[in-house]
Amino acid sequence: MLRQDGFDLVLLQEVWSEQDYSDLKGKLRGCYPFSHYFHSGVIGSGLCIFSRFPILDTLLYQYSLNGYPYMLQHGDWFCGKSVGLIVTKISGIIFNVYVTHLHAEYCREKDVYLPHRLVQAWELAQFIRHTLTAADVVLLGGDLNMHPGDVGIRLLRGWTGLRDAFAEAARFEGCEDGCTLIPNNCFTAKTELLPFPQGVRIDYILYKAISSVTVKCEELKTTTGTAPGMDIPFSDHEAVMATLHIQRQGQAVGDNLGTAEPMLVDVVTETRTEVVVGLRAAQRQRYSTGRMAVLALLLLLLQAVAALGALAGLVAGQPFPKLSFSLLAFLAIGVLLLATGLHLFHTMEVKMLQGTEEQMRMALRALQERPSDG
Amino acid sequence: MLRQDGFDLVLLQEVWSEQDYSDLKGKLRGCYPFSHYFHSGVIGSGLCIFSRFPILDTLLYQYSLNGYPYMLQHGDWFCGKSVGLIVTKISGIIFNVYVTHLHAEYCREKDVYLPHRLVQAWELAQFIRHTLTAADVVLLGGDLNMHPGDVGIRLLRGWTGLRDAFAEAARFEGCEDGCTLIPNNCFTAKTELLPFPQGVRIDYILYKAISSVTVKCEELKTTTGTAPGMDIPFSDHEAVMATLHIQRQGQAVGDNLGTAEPMLVDVVTETRTEVVVGLRAAQRQRYSTGRMAVLALLLLLLQAVAALGALAGLVAGQPFPKLSFSLLAFLAIGVLLLATGLHLFHTMEVKMLQGTEEQMRMALRALQERPSDG
Repeated sequence: MLRQDGFDLVLLQEVWSEQDYSDLKGKLRGCYPFSHYFHSGVIGSGLCIFSRFPILDTLLYQYSLNGYPYMLQHGDWFCGKSVGLIVTKISGIIFNVYVTHLHAEYCREKDVYLPHRLVQAWELAQFIRHTLTAADVVLLGGDLNMHPGDVGIRLLRGWTGLRDAFAEAARFEGCEDGCTLIPNNCFTAKTELLPFPQGVRIDYILYKAISSVTVKCEELKTTTGTAPGMDIPFSDHEAVMATLHIQRQGQAVGDNLGTAEPMLVDVVTETRTEVVVGLRAAQRQRYSTGRMAVLALLLLLLQAVAALGALAGLVAGQPFPKLSFSLLAFLAIGVLLLATGLHLFHTMEVKMLQGTEEQMRMALRALQERPSDG
Repeated sequence: MLRQDGFDLVLLQEVWSEQDYSDLKGKLRGCYPFSHYFHSGVIGSGLCIFSRFPILDTLLYQYSLNGYPYMLQHGDWFCGKSVGLIVTKISGIIFNVYVTHLHAEYCREKDVYLPHRLVQAWELAQFIRHTLTAADVVLLGGDLNMHPGDVGIRLLRGWTGLRDAFAEAARFEGCEDGCTLIPNNCFTAKTELLPFPQGVRIDYILYKAISSVTVKCEELKTTTGTAPGMDIPFSDHEAVMATLHIQRQGQAVGDNLGTAEPMLVDVVTETRTEVVVGLRAAQRQRYSTGRMAVLALLLLLLQAVAALGALAGLVAGQPFPKLSFSLLAFLAIGVLLLATGLHLFHTMEVKMLQGTEEQMRMALRALQERPSDG
C-alpha cells in the first residue's frame, strides 16, 4: 500500500523490531529513498519516518515520564516513548516533521497514566514550540492516545497553534468521525470500546504554517478495517492519510502561537490540576516504598542481632533454625532492594511532575501578564 | 559575591539539594528576582539559573547516555545530566541561555566515559542548533568536563558556531590560561592534576549572535582559589565571569552555522570513531551480561531438576542439603536478576550509541554533499 499510493512522507509508530524496519527500508527503497529510525529505551521508540525527499537533520527528545517499569503488562516504560523530529525540504519549503506515540490509556475510567501522558503532551508542545522557528511548515503525526476533546489534545493544540487535519479537511473518506481505533478491527480489544460503539479517534495529523506559506488540508482518509483483498487489517489502528495543499505567499504571515489567551489559560490550568493529582499520588508511593525499605532494613538489623546473640551462645540451649533464618534474611534483602529501587523511581517521578507543574505555573503567569497580543 | 557583583545572569551547576536552591533563591531575591531549577534524574540535574530579567520560557533536554548506574562511586548516572534552556529578553533582545554539565572525566588516560560524553556533546550541539532560531543571542555556560582542544569541544563549537569567551576576550583576569580546575584549590584532587601543574580549563562561557546583533566579549574573569577574606574557595571549580557587549545592527547578519566544512568533516569523523569504539565496548558488555543471565538460568533449572529428583526419592539414601541448596538458589536468582538488568541497560546503551553514530553518518553525508555555502 505504501508503495502503491506514493506518499511524500510516511510516519510509522510501534515498529518495535529493528529487523522489521530494515525489511521495510529494503522494500520501500524505490519509492522512499530516505528514512530514519529513532533509537531509544530498551526496546526502541518504535518511531520511524520514510521520505521521498532527503532528510536533512534529525533530533530525538525522550519524555521524562513514561509509566512504571514494574507494570510489565503495560510495557510502555521499556519503549522509551519519545518524539522524533526530521527536517526536510520540499520544493524549497522547509518542513519540520514530528512523529510521536504517547503513553497508552489502559482504563479510561481510572486512568492512572493521565498525569504521565499530560507531562508528555506538555513536553511535546514545548519541544515543538522551541524547535519550529527555522521551518516553514510543521507537521505532527502519530498515536497520541487522546480523544479529540481530551485536555491533553487541547493543551497541545492551544499551546502550539497546530491545526487538526481531520477538522480542517475539505473532503473526508473513511471511518465515521475519523475514528482510528474501531471495534470492526479484529486486533482491537472489544471490551475497551464498549462505551464507544463507533470507535475513537486517537491518531492524528496536525499541521501549522509558520512563515510566508499557507497550508490547507484538501483531503483526509482513513483505512477502514480489512486491507483490500485480505481478511485482516493492516494494523490494530486505522492509518490516517492527509493530502495537504501548501503554497508560498508573498508576505510573511504572523506566527500565531496557539489559541486565544483566556481559553488557553483554562486549558493549562486544567492540565496543571491533573499533574498535581499525579504529583500527590507519586508522593504517596514515594513515602510508602521508603517506609517499606526502612522496615526491611530494621528486620535485617534484628536478624543480625539475633544471629550475633546465637553466636555468643546466649540461646545455646536451642538449635538455631539456620534454613528459615537465611530464607528470611534473603527475603528481607530482596524487599529492601526492591523497595529502594521503587523509592528512587518515585522520587524521580515526583521531581519531574514538580518540574512540569512549575513550568505550567510560569506559563500561566506569562499568559496572564502579557497584553493580549495573541 | 553574587549579590555584590550584580550580574545579569548566573548559571550554576551541581546545586544538588533543592533546599540549597531555595536558600539561594531567598538570599538572592533582591538582585535576581527570577530563577529556575531544572528537575531531572533521581538526585536532580543540579542546574539552575538566576536572572535579573523575567524568564519567559524554559525547556529541559535529558541526555540519552550518562554513565552507568552501577558505578556508584561516580554518581553521574543518578543526576540525570541534562541541558537546561531559558528564554529571556533584555532591552528587546531575545536570549536563549543554556546551562549544562557533562559527564565527568575520572581518568584521562583510560576514559571509559568518553563515548558517553561525546554523545552528550553531540546532543547538546543538536539541541542548540534546533532551538536557537527564535533567539538573537545564544549563551551557553557550564562545566563541560572537556579541555579546550578535546574533540568534544571542537565538535560542539564547530557544529553550532559558538565562540569561546576566553579566546575572544579583549581583557582577561584570573587563573593562568583561564584554568577553572586548579591545584591551588583545596577541594580538588591533586593527583588528577599532576600532568597539568597549572590546572585545566573545563568550564566555559560560549556565545553566538544569531540575527541583526553583534556580541563581543569585553572582559573575562575567573576567581582564583580562596574567596576574599576567607581560607577556603567558593567551590572546587573556579567561577567564570564574562562581560559581553551586545549591540543591535542595522542589517541581519547571515547565520553561519559552524566552522568551515572540511575542518568540520574531520571533527565529526573523529567523534564518530570514538562513538564506534564505545559501541563495540557496549556490545561486548551486552553479550557478557546476557551470557551470565543465561548461565544463572541454567543453574536454576539444574537445581529445579535436582530438587524434583530428591522429591521423587531418587537419592533417598542421602540427606538433602537444604541450607546450601537454598543459598545457591538465592544466589542464582540474584545473579539472574542483576545480569538481566545490566543486559537491558547495555542494550539501551548500544541503541543510543548506534543512533548517534547514524546521525553523525547522516551529518557527514550532508556536509560532504552540500556545496560550500559555509
